[in-house]
Amino acid sequence: MKKLWLIPLLLAAAPAPPPAPSPGEIVAAAPAAEWTTIAASDLLVMDLASVAKGKTRRVIIQLMPPPFSQGWISNIRTLAAAKWWDGTSVNRVQDNYVVQWGDATEKKALPKGMASVPESQYVSPWAIAAWIPLPGKGFDYREFRSNYGTDGINRGWPISNNAATAWPVHCYGMVGVGRNLSPDTGSGAELYTVIGHAPRHLDRNIALIGRVIEGIEHLSSLPRGTEVLGFYKTAAERVPIRSVRIGTEVNGLPAFQYLSTESESFAKYADARANRRDPFFNVPAGGADICNIPVPVRRVK
Amino acid sequence: MKKLWLIPLLLAAAPAPPPAPSPGEIVAAAPAAEWTTIAASDLLVMDLASVAKGKTRRVIIQLMPPPFSQGWISNIRTLAAAKWWDGTSVNRVQDNYVVQWGDATEKKALPKGMASVPESQYVSPWAIAAWIPLPGKGFDYREFRSNYGTDGINRGWPISNNAATAWPVHCYGMVGVGRNLSPDTGSGAELYTVIGHAPRHLDRNIALIGRVIEGIEHLSSLPRGTEVLGFYKTAAERVPIRSVRIGTEVNGLPAFQYLSTESESFAKYADARANRRDPFFNVPAGGADICNIPVPVRRVK
Repeated sequence: MKKLWLIPLLLAAAPAPPPAPSPGEIVAAAPAAEWTTIAASDLLVMDLASVAKGKTRRVIIQLMPPPFSQGWISNIRTLAAAKWWDGTSVNRVQDNYVVQWGDATEKKALPKGMASVPESQYVSPWAIAAWIPLPGKGFDYREFRSNYGTDGINRGWPISNNAATAWPVHCYGMVGVGRNLSPDTGSGAELYTVIGHAPRHLDRNIALIGRVIEGIEHLSSLPRGTEVLGFYKTAAERVPIRSVRIGTEVNGLPAFQYLSTESESFAKYADARANRRDPFFNVPAGGADICNIPVPVRRVK
Repeated sequence: MKKLWLIPLLLAAAPAPPPAPSPGEIVAAAPAAEWTTIAASDLLVMDLASVAKGKTRRVIIQLMPPPFSQGWISNIRTLAAAKWWDGTSVNRVQDNYVVQWGDATEKKALPKGMASVPESQYVSPWAIAAWIPLPGKGFDYREFRSNYGTDGINRGWPISNNAATAWPVHCYGMVGVGRNLSPDTGSGAELYTVIGHAPRHLDRNIALIGRVIEGIEHLSSLPRGTEVLGFYKTAAERVPIRSVRIGTEVNGLPAFQYLSTESESFAKYADARANRRDPFFNVPAGGADICNIPVPVRRVK
């Protein structure tokens, strides 16, 4: 079967210059020093109930570093330590929007030590002035205008900002905290991840606490719920959560690394995402959306 | 169970002003005259094999009007009339990217009358100057800058443009034509739809021929393929296509309408998407991405 959208096999004896590398090829060639290891203590590992034939379904989330959302992340550590999510479920799958999980009854008591986090933590005073300069030429992924603010990818994360504050961006795979109407900000017990086009109207209105770095397909390919907002109609449709643990509590967990967004290879990768020059493409876009430059993550072998 | 992100029930005897309507409420209140009926001859109806319990899986695609992509759309009409897709399959599901269908063997002969369409048809000279003026106040969804060009929603479709040309945009649910390396442009026999964040680097590089208006969940929730580019590894994983027909050939097909993008209600809807003021939201975004203002479509009862 011919593979559409693939790099063609090199023709024998062709002296033509090599084709421009694809974003994936740039990432694959990045030296080891450009990869940043994610501490196991910053991973949240969710195991769903197995499907037929005992096939496991593991979703791995990287928690966001300071200065963002640390109040909710502290709560999430408390919930994981208490094994609070064990036996809860995925309750909502809304197409082109979010998958949400937690206690479907919403009556399960929370563990002690949970904080009420103020709305002010939806943003941070971390200013663009503090961002690290672009390490190479090409598309300036550190600072470009969008219809939502000044966007940029910095210190490993998609961040938007205005003159006053900065905030994380609702890209595909980002994980946030369900809440009720303001002034409620959610505890962190109800979480969701984005499975569609970035719903950036949620930015600054709800807490983002991390991103799925492996296994999102176990959430994004679930059947869509048929009730309002994609909630499942029956308890039988819900997907049981077997356990959620911080990475340090999981035996045999591999290490993960992300490509440093301050590296030369990331600068080349971002430029290639904004201007595809590999053989499939005729017209480079001339720019990119912040959510169309996902930060590469890999397992360490 | 409390419904997160829902409009709260009105409190009894509360004299407060009514909350600002949500985008969905604005659409629901749009008068009948603002809805445009889609001709059945512009619908492409794909029935997948039934799942367990005989539950049907129908995907309905609206074909794009002139001046865009008409060469491929003519081929697609020829393929549907020849019942060419019957017995083919969904062969590729790549997370946060596309679902692709067609003849997995790529050896099935095409019907007579298929045209070879030039790359020049990826774009159109339809200029922004020809676009219809904004019918109301608020966010100007007709013309706003993005990192990809000047974007706008016009005559029912998401369109980007530069000084020379205009082109349809790869938003979630848009349907395009798989191809090999240039100068191949694809015939229309291999189709894909977007199931993730808009891959706008494909704009101007590949033909878009329409959008899924109903049933995309039957494609977006399919298991992801485990081979390169999300192709299924085994024939058993492929999802059989029972039939693909133009809407006029389908008995009992309901009519569909889209909210005219030149209507007052669409202007209000787009403004509400860009600036959410309904009770859940604290901070309006102040703008929107073109793919975060999907054109509302409804079944006619």
